[in-house]
Amino acid sequence: MSSFSPQDHVFMQQALRLAEAATRRAAPNPGVGCVLVRDGQIIGEGATLQVGGDHAEIQAIKDCLARGNTPRGATAYVTLEPCSHHGRTPPCAERLIQEGLARVVAAMVDPYHEVSGRGLAMLRAAGIDARAGLLETEARRVHRGFLSRVERQRPWVTLKAAATLDGKTALLNGKSQWITGPAARHDVQKLRARHCAILTGSGTVLVDNPQLTVRDFILPQQPLRVVLDSRLVTPPDRRIFHGGNTLLVTSSADLARHQPYLQRGAELMVLPEDAGHANLPMLMRHLAERGINELMIEAGAGLNGALVRAGLVDEAILYLAPALVGSTAQGLFAWPALEDLADKQQVKIQDVRMVGADIRINMTFAAPL
Amino acid sequence: MSSFSPQDHVFMQQALRLAEAATRRAAPNPGVGCVLVRDGQIIGEGATLQVGGDHAEIQAIKDCLARGNTPRGATAYVTLEPCSHHGRTPPCAERLIQEGLARVVAAMVDPYHEVSGRGLAMLRAAGIDARAGLLETEARRVHRGFLSRVERQRPWVTLKAAATLDGKTALLNGKSQWITGPAARHDVQKLRARHCAILTGSGTVLVDNPQLTVRDFILPQQPLRVVLDSRLVTPPDRRIFHGGNTLLVTSSADLARHQPYLQRGAELMVLPEDAGHANLPMLMRHLAERGINELMIEAGAGLNGALVRAGLVDEAILYLAPALVGSTAQGLFAWPALEDLADKQQVKIQDVRMVGADIRINMTFAAPL
Repeated sequence: MSSFSPQDHVFMQQALRLAEAATRRAAPNPGVGCVLVRDGQIIGEGATLQVGGDHAEIQAIKDCLARGNTPRGATAYVTLEPCSHHGRTPPCAERLIQEGLARVVAAMVDPYHEVSGRGLAMLRAAGIDARAGLLETEARRVHRGFLSRVERQRPWVTLKAAATLDGKTALLNGKSQWITGPAARHDVQKLRARHCAILTGSGTVLVDNPQLTVRDFILPQQPLRVVLDSRLVTPPDRRIFHGGNTLLVTSSADLARHQPYLQRGAELMVLPEDAGHANLPMLMRHLAERGINELMIEAGAGLNGALVRAGLVDEAILYLAPALVGSTAQGLFAWPALEDLADKQQVKIQDVRMVGADIRINMTFAAPL
Repeated sequence: MSSFSPQDHVFMQQALRLAEAATRRAAPNPGVGCVLVRDGQIIGEGATLQVGGDHAEIQAIKDCLARGNTPRGATAYVTLEPCSHHGRTPPCAERLIQEGLARVVAAMVDPYHEVSGRGLAMLRAAGIDARAGLLETEARRVHRGFLSRVERQRPWVTLKAAATLDGKTALLNGKSQWITGPAARHDVQKLRARHCAILTGSGTVLVDNPQLTVRDFILPQQPLRVVLDSRLVTPPDRRIFHGGNTLLVTSSADLARHQPYLQRGAELMVLPEDAGHANLPMLMRHLAERGINELMIEAGAGLNGALVRAGLVDEAILYLAPALVGSTAQGLFAWPALEDLADKQQVKIQDVRMVGADIRINMTFAAPL
């Protein structure tokens, strides 16, 4: 898009940074960023608040006014097309027209069926120079959770795993905790904090008894904890059932067996069983309907392998600790033996770096959204 | 060592670069580098030639004279103490005295019993300002093969392995070749080229039928190929027995069974068996006696695991391909199951980088020499 200037790129990059920081807070809405600019100067900035609160454009206008500026004649850079419909809030396109903005640059058109080009059309009809497509790839990356939910009816799924350099998550006897160091564990806390929900399996709950909470930061809302336990084998006294905010997904319709979990504050969902697990695509669709934009997986080899083979993992973050434990120990991804190397699961490495004494590898599984 | 100036460091770094480049050529001698400096200018450079040829100091003096300079009154920077004994060549210390050098800075004292401080003493006795200890850690790294052979009576051992991101070298059915990409395979060729010998096991020869030769570069001498096959199970028609330059290490003293290998030009060595392998420390001692400074391991999980557990691996270079093959596939290091995570083999990560589409991880197993 050569119609955008280098300066346009700089301001949209700032809008993308604001969007990134607002993503978790805004979910299930997209965490949009907005920057108002006049004469090459930023005169107002904003990002989407939590559900029911202002969208990014309104926050940026309020910031502009609070700084003693006026948005009249300015350019608005927004990471997603301004909305055109009356939802929980009035349409942002209407407000931009009212405030007399001269130009609106959106990184991308909103795929949500009630917007989808209508916001830009409304602006243009009011004589505003409104265009989309600046840093669209970057915006699709920032808004991947929202886009996945709207376009694919499932969350964006990021799998986290920690292993030794020889790819082992636990010894043969099951011993596993603290394979990676404190810096990697803090990194995992940051990762959890940006997710709407964290999925694990009954094996992990049985053996590791994790809390799957964010403890290094204070959050307005902890990620929803989702436990996949098709046959209800996890004892209800496990830590993950403490304090509510846990969804137990099972294939057991025996309501009496649900009681101990319900009493501890867990929510239960029954899904049909499929190859030893609750049906995974159905689970994903349900989580999307529930407003989960980004789902993190912290599970064992069985569930990890099933999700990867079902094509339900978008990216993975693998921490490798500087140690070797030998071939008998437990692996990362379980699935039936491959007959040919051509059947391997290909990934693309996006980033490799040290986190403390451990290596962190970020990889993607499929083409970007 | 505050007695060395910043300028001293710069010239010694150049001497170390020359040393690094001469290491393979000079083996089993140390590949020493030497820089002659007067008035802040390099007036001559040299590095050790192949066995029987000039040492670094002589090469630097010849280079100095060829450039029309004289070494008289200059400073010599050498990565290892100049020799004081008549070996295959006259002592370098004597020549430095004859040429009228004013100052000699060595990175380290030569641990070889016939030198070991005598070279520096000889220089000082002739009135030359001779000192050691500048960038000694770096010099010990460059000369690690020679030092390991002289100080520990075994080669410096570097293990190379290639696996998928989930730590697998081959499928359950044995299929394995071309796990990593062309850039990683070229990197392995460079690695082979710097080694005096490459060790593999009978399993790898049986399944992969490798040549273990350097094909991307023309070398004056290919690394010695060492095959560990205690029970002589590798068919003599395997490619590794073509063209000689192969040492077959076995525990079978049945001379008739040696014949087919001998006929193909292989050399045989019989070592006592120990836990299913030829005795590994004895093998290492033998290779050191034979002048192998640096040994590379390219083997399967069994031999890799045995060498690591025997404490005979100094560093490893692990290539990880961007793919997953699942837990049933074959692992990197085989040894009996650990009871406790405290028994894990700790390593230290020295470098992580992309090589083509693969990740390369360099790690060390023990404290540096």
